[in-house]
Amino acid sequence: MNVVDIISKKRDGGVLSAEEIDFFVKGYTDGTIADYQASALLMAVCINGMTEEETSSLTLCIRDSGDTVDLSGIEGIKVDKHSTGGVGDKTTLVVAPIVAACGVRVAKMSGRGLGHTGGTLDKLESIKGFSTVMERERFVKTVNTTGLSVIGQSGNLAPADKKLYALRDVTGTINSIPLIASSIMGKKLASGADRIVLDVKTGNGAFMSNLSDASALAEAMVNIGKAAGKPTVALITDMESPLGRAVGNSLEVAEAIETLKGRGEERFLTLCLSLAAEMLCAAKKGSTEECLSMARDAVESGRALTAFRVMVIAQGGDPCQVDDTSLLPKACIVHPFVAEKSGYITEQRALSYGKAACELGAGRKRKEDGVDHSAGVYINKKLGEWVEKGDVIAQLHTSDADLLSRAEAYIAEGTKISEEKPILPPVIICKVNEQGVSSWTN
Amino acid sequence: MNVVDIISKKRDGGVLSAEEIDFFVKGYTDGTIADYQASALLMAVCINGMTEEETSSLTLCIRDSGDTVDLSGIEGIKVDKHSTGGVGDKTTLVVAPIVAACGVRVAKMSGRGLGHTGGTLDKLESIKGFSTVMERERFVKTVNTTGLSVIGQSGNLAPADKKLYALRDVTGTINSIPLIASSIMGKKLASGADRIVLDVKTGNGAFMSNLSDASALAEAMVNIGKAAGKPTVALITDMESPLGRAVGNSLEVAEAIETLKGRGEERFLTLCLSLAAEMLCAAKKGSTEECLSMARDAVESGRALTAFRVMVIAQGGDPCQVDDTSLLPKACIVHPFVAEKSGYITEQRALSYGKAACELGAGRKRKEDGVDHSAGVYINKKLGEWVEKGDVIAQLHTSDADLLSRAEAYIAEGTKISEEKPILPPVIICKVNEQGVSSWTN
Repeated sequence: MNVVDIISKKRDGGVLSAEEIDFFVKGYTDGTIADYQASALLMAVCINGMTEEETSSLTLCIRDSGDTVDLSGIEGIKVDKHSTGGVGDKTTLVVAPIVAACGVRVAKMSGRGLGHTGGTLDKLESIKGFSTVMERERFVKTVNTTGLSVIGQSGNLAPADKKLYALRDVTGTINSIPLIASSIMGKKLASGADRIVLDVKTGNGAFMSNLSDASALAEAMVNIGKAAGKPTVALITDMESPLGRAVGNSLEVAEAIETLKGRGEERFLTLCLSLAAEMLCAAKKGSTEECLSMARDAVESGRALTAFRVMVIAQGGDPCQVDDTSLLPKACIVHPFVAEKSGYITEQRALSYGKAACELGAGRKRKEDGVDHSAGVYINKKLGEWVEKGDVIAQLHTSDADLLSRAEAYIAEGTKISEEKPILPPVIICKVNEQGVSSWTN
Repeated sequence: MNVVDIISKKRDGGVLSAEEIDFFVKGYTDGTIADYQASALLMAVCINGMTEEETSSLTLCIRDSGDTVDLSGIEGIKVDKHSTGGVGDKTTLVVAPIVAACGVRVAKMSGRGLGHTGGTLDKLESIKGFSTVMERERFVKTVNTTGLSVIGQSGNLAPADKKLYALRDVTGTINSIPLIASSIMGKKLASGADRIVLDVKTGNGAFMSNLSDASALAEAMVNIGKAAGKPTVALITDMESPLGRAVGNSLEVAEAIETLKGRGEERFLTLCLSLAAEMLCAAKKGSTEECLSMARDAVESGRALTAFRVMVIAQGGDPCQVDDTSLLPKACIVHPFVAEKSGYITEQRALSYGKAACELGAGRKRKEDGVDHSAGVYINKKLGEWVEKGDVIAQLHTSDADLLSRAEAYIAEGTKISEEKPILPPVIICKVNEQGVSSWTN
């Protein structure tokens, strides 16, 4: 087998065999295939696509390129959740405790990620003392004892994906459904769960800005799960405006805790309950409706909050910050963004708010950057709400006053006020599983 | 400007501006753009193509990436000739002396090339003492004095092309009309001629195996020439069977000299006279018909042979080998390939004969290999001729008996005998110039 022949085949629109894909992934991982050959093939895939079979083969090769996590020591069906990422997406912090509170163990390995705000790990690390590093053995033991743990991905998990992603990032080959799907699912499959629930975001603040791309990605990932024998379901959810009110690490932790305390923003709570219900369904806890009611009960009864508190303690975090979120890291500068006129907020662009939070210090522009846990944007007035001229729409939190002007410009650019009340899209647009696409009643 | 944006634009089928192409070529040549980024862009070009304007811009950037040759010291209109390469293509050795004998100075810089047989330089170096290395100043002086000189490309000519070509070779991005056209024309434009005549081969032994690709390449190059203000004309010529009777360096030199002596194989002579006529036309010596008759007269009168002999002497070669071609390097082993049955030769695949010659030692498999000047294949019976069972169809010349069996297998595979007399395609299929495609009467 010869890599130039494989590249040429895909260039000419051919279908690669499982052996050819395996030859490529192994060769690229071990360095016998050069970066410049891999990028040529990736570009051919970007333009000419991949069949379902090719995408599944690629995913399995990525999964098998390194260690795979053995979660068999954890009792019950292991369900993993993954979000394609959005602005203000603190969903895991709420969903995982709800699911654990309903008796399904959650062993979650998260990434740090590059984005407008930090990843789940960065958010959790806002809590004083919280550690996301844990030996595999203690992780398994913790999950069995407390029902829930969220740690960082460790070890040599899907190294092919790391190498391929780094290359795609600098060669204009990110935007390809088969490449995105295999990258996400390759890591998920290596993480050892039995079933997978996906939150595929769509809208200006999402990786997939339109519904057709989001659907294609969801379908591709569900198909991969099926081919790998790991039943997978995806909710396609709205990311036109930020999720909830907080964008930024400690701000989001505070909002997650408030949500677990029953004081959450409505659309964000709906999303959390729906994702939790899907995870409970996947763990065979009942019908979607039964699971939805179970999830709601876990929040209302305070059991979900307790599950979160237990996790914080088990991972060395300060439970006082859970009990009183005002103890979480706070920015020294809080600058208001006020309404220039009265009216309904008709646009609140997720991307603009995300960029503003990143400017304020909440996110990473480069991998090696740190994050400012206290920085971010808090939204006082959400999309669709009425504001009077001079009302505070959002608060900009930062440690550096010099960062305010650019952040404020993003917020201004992303906020529109008009006299006509806007119609909001549903939080959950639809559901994709092995049976196809179905509607979802929010 | 950002290379990832440029790559993404081409990935999505966009049209690159002259500035973007310039940014890419300069960046890749100076190393600020990495191989893996260049190969991604090249693949996007392979699949999504380039407009005429983009192709011209790329060509000019390749031309300007290094030195450009100043031929202004040579009197008259300078016409360059380039062949896309074929099996038994010793055309330059005959065409250049004809044109010089008609009073048009020929300052030819040739490549060594990777192929079934050596390039023009390898062929000329079969002549004892012949040197293809010459200082630029002496080259100009020699051409002005003797009317003709053929030397190797020297100096830093189109370094972007060297780098791009090496990358394309290992990334499956060779087959792209805009990339091939800009590679050829970038070097030709850097070589300083006023006008360019192209011999674009089509058939199994050519780079472009079918007429539509060959036509597209010819049109692309003619357009580039027009855009660069260097009028260009292309003949599309047959490369289904080897050109002439000789395939191999010294064998081809001998055949070229015999052709100049008026004893050439008919189709090969036709091609040489036609290309010479196009060059003379380009140099404004008269109409195509007048130039064709001038070219024929140069051969028949012996003036073309004299021009060749003068060139050999001027470049240190032994003129005795011109006077008596039996003095040229000879292989110690000459093995006959005989007809298995009687009939017409209905197939004589150029590619198979080329591979046979290469096996026998005439060509390079890798850049660093040397060539065996005496090795090759001599064709006694050409396509369309009648053979009796046992007749010698071809002679395999080599220094190493071990190489015979594989070479013979290629010849056997490429030779078919049948009872029905085949109809041969014309040597010159058509002509492409700025006015479009026109027929050519052979």
